[in-house]
Amino acid sequence: MGVHAGIKKARRDVALIVSDAPATVGAAVFTQNAFAAAPVHVSRQHVANGDVRAIVVNSGNANACTGRQGLRDALSMARTAAEQLGIQPEQVLVCSTGIIGRPLPLASVLAGIKDCASRLDHAVGGEAADAILTTDSGPKEASRTVTIDGIEYHVAGMAKGAGMIHPNMATMLALMATDAPVDAADLRALLKYAVDRSFNQISVDGDESTNDTAILLANGVAGGEPITRAHPAWVPLRDALTDLCQELAKRIVADGEGATRLLEVHVTGAASETDARVASRAVVSSNLVKAALHGGDPNWGRIVAALGQSRVAIDTNAINLDITSNAGRARLLADGQPVSDALEAGRVALGAPEVTFHVHLGVGDGEASAWGCDLTEDYVSFNAEYST
Amino acid sequence: MGVHAGIKKARRDVALIVSDAPATVGAAVFTQNAFAAAPVHVSRQHVANGDVRAIVVNSGNANACTGRQGLRDALSMARTAAEQLGIQPEQVLVCSTGIIGRPLPLASVLAGIKDCASRLDHAVGGEAADAILTTDSGPKEASRTVTIDGIEYHVAGMAKGAGMIHPNMATMLALMATDAPVDAADLRALLKYAVDRSFNQISVDGDESTNDTAILLANGVAGGEPITRAHPAWVPLRDALTDLCQELAKRIVADGEGATRLLEVHVTGAASETDARVASRAVVSSNLVKAALHGGDPNWGRIVAALGQSRVAIDTNAINLDITSNAGRARLLADGQPVSDALEAGRVALGAPEVTFHVHLGVGDGEASAWGCDLTEDYVSFNAEYST
Repeated sequence: MGVHAGIKKARRDVALIVSDAPATVGAAVFTQNAFAAAPVHVSRQHVANGDVRAIVVNSGNANACTGRQGLRDALSMARTAAEQLGIQPEQVLVCSTGIIGRPLPLASVLAGIKDCASRLDHAVGGEAADAILTTDSGPKEASRTVTIDGIEYHVAGMAKGAGMIHPNMATMLALMATDAPVDAADLRALLKYAVDRSFNQISVDGDESTNDTAILLANGVAGGEPITRAHPAWVPLRDALTDLCQELAKRIVADGEGATRLLEVHVTGAASETDARVASRAVVSSNLVKAALHGGDPNWGRIVAALGQSRVAIDTNAINLDITSNAGRARLLADGQPVSDALEAGRVALGAPEVTFHVHLGVGDGEASAWGCDLTEDYVSFNAEYST
Repeated sequence: MGVHAGIKKARRDVALIVSDAPATVGAAVFTQNAFAAAPVHVSRQHVANGDVRAIVVNSGNANACTGRQGLRDALSMARTAAEQLGIQPEQVLVCSTGIIGRPLPLASVLAGIKDCASRLDHAVGGEAADAILTTDSGPKEASRTVTIDGIEYHVAGMAKGAGMIHPNMATMLALMATDAPVDAADLRALLKYAVDRSFNQISVDGDESTNDTAILLANGVAGGEPITRAHPAWVPLRDALTDLCQELAKRIVADGEGATRLLEVHVTGAASETDARVASRAVVSSNLVKAALHGGDPNWGRIVAALGQSRVAIDTNAINLDITSNAGRARLLADGQPVSDALEAGRVALGAPEVTFHVHLGVGDGEASAWGCDLTEDYVSFNAEYST
C-alpha cells in the first residue's frame, strides 16, 4: 500500500486493503478479551514478525466463539486474499465484526474477497485518507501530515465503531497507515503509545469486544532515513498518530448507540499520566455520570464519586472541577468544596452537544483525557430489543 | 443492644440504634471511595478499638464533600447521641445517606437525635430482626438463628440500598447485630468474610457511594464461651451471617432503580474463589448483559464477552453456560460452543422475575456468586431527570 503511490480498495460486506510497496511493515493491538475471536488469533500470529501487505475485513459475522472451524475459516480468508494478490497468507491480517457464535458464511466471504481483488481500484495521490479508506456510509476517517526537514509524512486512518456495523458487540476496528519509513518494532511502539491515549480511553458502555483490533501499516514511500526514537521526526510523527487516533476515537463515542452528547474528561494534577488515564476513564465509564449528562444535570457529586472509586491519589481538599462547552463554562468545585450558585451556570454549560469536564486532582503533574457519551433510554431500548 | 434483652429504637429522618449491653463490640466495613463522607471518617475512628454502643443514622443528607464543617457536624451527631444515652461519643458510629455537597442541617438532625432518644422503645424478645430494625416503609430486614451445643445464637440485620432513600448515590447501609459472644477482632473477620461474599458482590450500576457502610454489633447476650475460630459455632455463625448478608444484598439489587429482574450469576470451575468473584461480578456489571436481561434476550455472546474481559483464567473450550429460573432452564454453551436451538429455551428461562446464570469456567474449583439487576429505560430516565 502506498499512501501516495497506490492504495487499492474495494468493498461490500468484505473489504480488502492492500499495499503495493513490498517494504511495508505492520503493527497491531488486539482485544484483551479471553474470548478473542478467530481472526484475532490469526492476525496476532501473522503480525508477529511485522511483515504485512494486506488486511481483509468482513462485517456481519464476528467469527467469535466458533472453535476450530472458526480458526480454519479465518485462515481461509487470509489464504484466499493472498492467492488473489500474489503474496503469502502470513502477510495478510484478518478482521471480522458482527454477530458472535455463528459459523462464518465462508463461501460468500471468500467470493467477496475475490470480487474485491478483481475490482481493486488504484487511488494515486490525493488525500491519504481517501486512498486507504473504504467508502461505505458514514466512515470515520482522518489524516494528518507532518513535514520535517523537507520530507512530508502522512498518517491516515479509518475506524469502525460502536453501532456502526452491528449492535451486538460494539466492535472497534481501526485501520491506519503511514508512508513514513519505520521498522516493525518502532511501529509497534508508536501504535501502542497512540492507542493507550485514544482507543483505550473511550467508553461507550464499558464492554470490550471479542474482535477489537487496531492496525498500523508503514510503507516507507515518503522516503528518507528510517524514523527511530533518535530521529527528529519521531515525536512529531508519534504525536500526529496520537492526534489522529484521538479524532477517530472521539468519532466512535460520538456515534455511540443512542448517544446524544460527547463528553471529554480532561484530568490534570494527577500523580502520574497513568493515574490521570484511570481517573478520566472512570468518569466517562460511570452510568450515573452518563445518565446525568443525558439529563443536562451538573451533578458533580456523581463525578466526584466516580473519581473517588477509581482508587487513584486525590487531594480531596484541593480538587477543582470545571465544565466547559460552546454554551458556557462553570466551576463547580474549588479546593474540594462546592462553589455556591454554580449549578445554573453548570446547566448552561451542559447545554451543548460536546462538553468537557476539567478535573484537577491536586496531587502532581499527570495529565490525560478520556472520551465517552451519555447514557440514554435509546441505548437501553436498542440493546434490550436487539435479539440474538 | 441486646437482641433479646433490649433493643431500643425510634425513627423519622434520624434513627438511633442502641445496645443496652455494656459488653457490646462492633466491627465495620466502609466505602473505599476517596471521597468518603464525614460520617465514614468519624465511624472509622470510633470503631477502631471495637467499643461500640450505638449507631446514629440520618437520611436526606450524606454529609459528603462538606469539608471540615462536615467532620464537625458528624462529631456533633455522635456527641449528642452519647449525651442522651450516657455513653462516650467514641462509642457511637455515624451513618448518613442522601444528597452530597450540601451542609448538614445540623440543628434539625440533633433535634431528631434527642427526639429518638426520648422515645426509645424497648423491644424485648421476639424476632431479632424486629428488635433492631426501624419500621419505615419497605425496610430490607432478615434474621438467622443457629443452635450449637444447646445455645441459640441470633443474627439479624437491616439494609438500606439503591433507590430506597435517595436516587443520588445509591448509598448502601447495612446494620447488623448478633447476640453471640465474639471479640472485636474476630467480629471484624466474620464481617469481612460475609461482606466479601454479599454486599461486595452486587452491582446496580457499578457506582460506589461515598457513604457505603456495613456494621455488625455483638453483645454476647446469648452466653457461652467467646466464639473464636476454634469454637464449634464459628463456621455455622459465619455462614449464617454470610447467608443473611446475601439475602439483604439480593434485596438491595432487586430494589435497584428501575429494575424489573433480579439476576444471580453463579460461577464454578474458576481457578480460585477470588477469580470466581471477579468473573461473576463482571457479568452482573455489564451494561450489555443488563440490557439483554431487560429484553429477555438469551444473548450469551454478551455474557461470554463480559467474562472474557474480566481477565480471569478461562478454558474457552470447556466453558458451560446455563440459564435457570422458575420458568425453565436452558444450556446455551457446552464446552465453549453454542448449543444449537437453545435460544428459544433460553428466552423461556429468562421469562421470570428472578433468573440465574450458571457459568462453569473449566479451570479449577473456585466458586462464587454475584447479584445484579436489569438495565432499564426507567433507570436512565430516573437518573437523567433527577436534578442536583
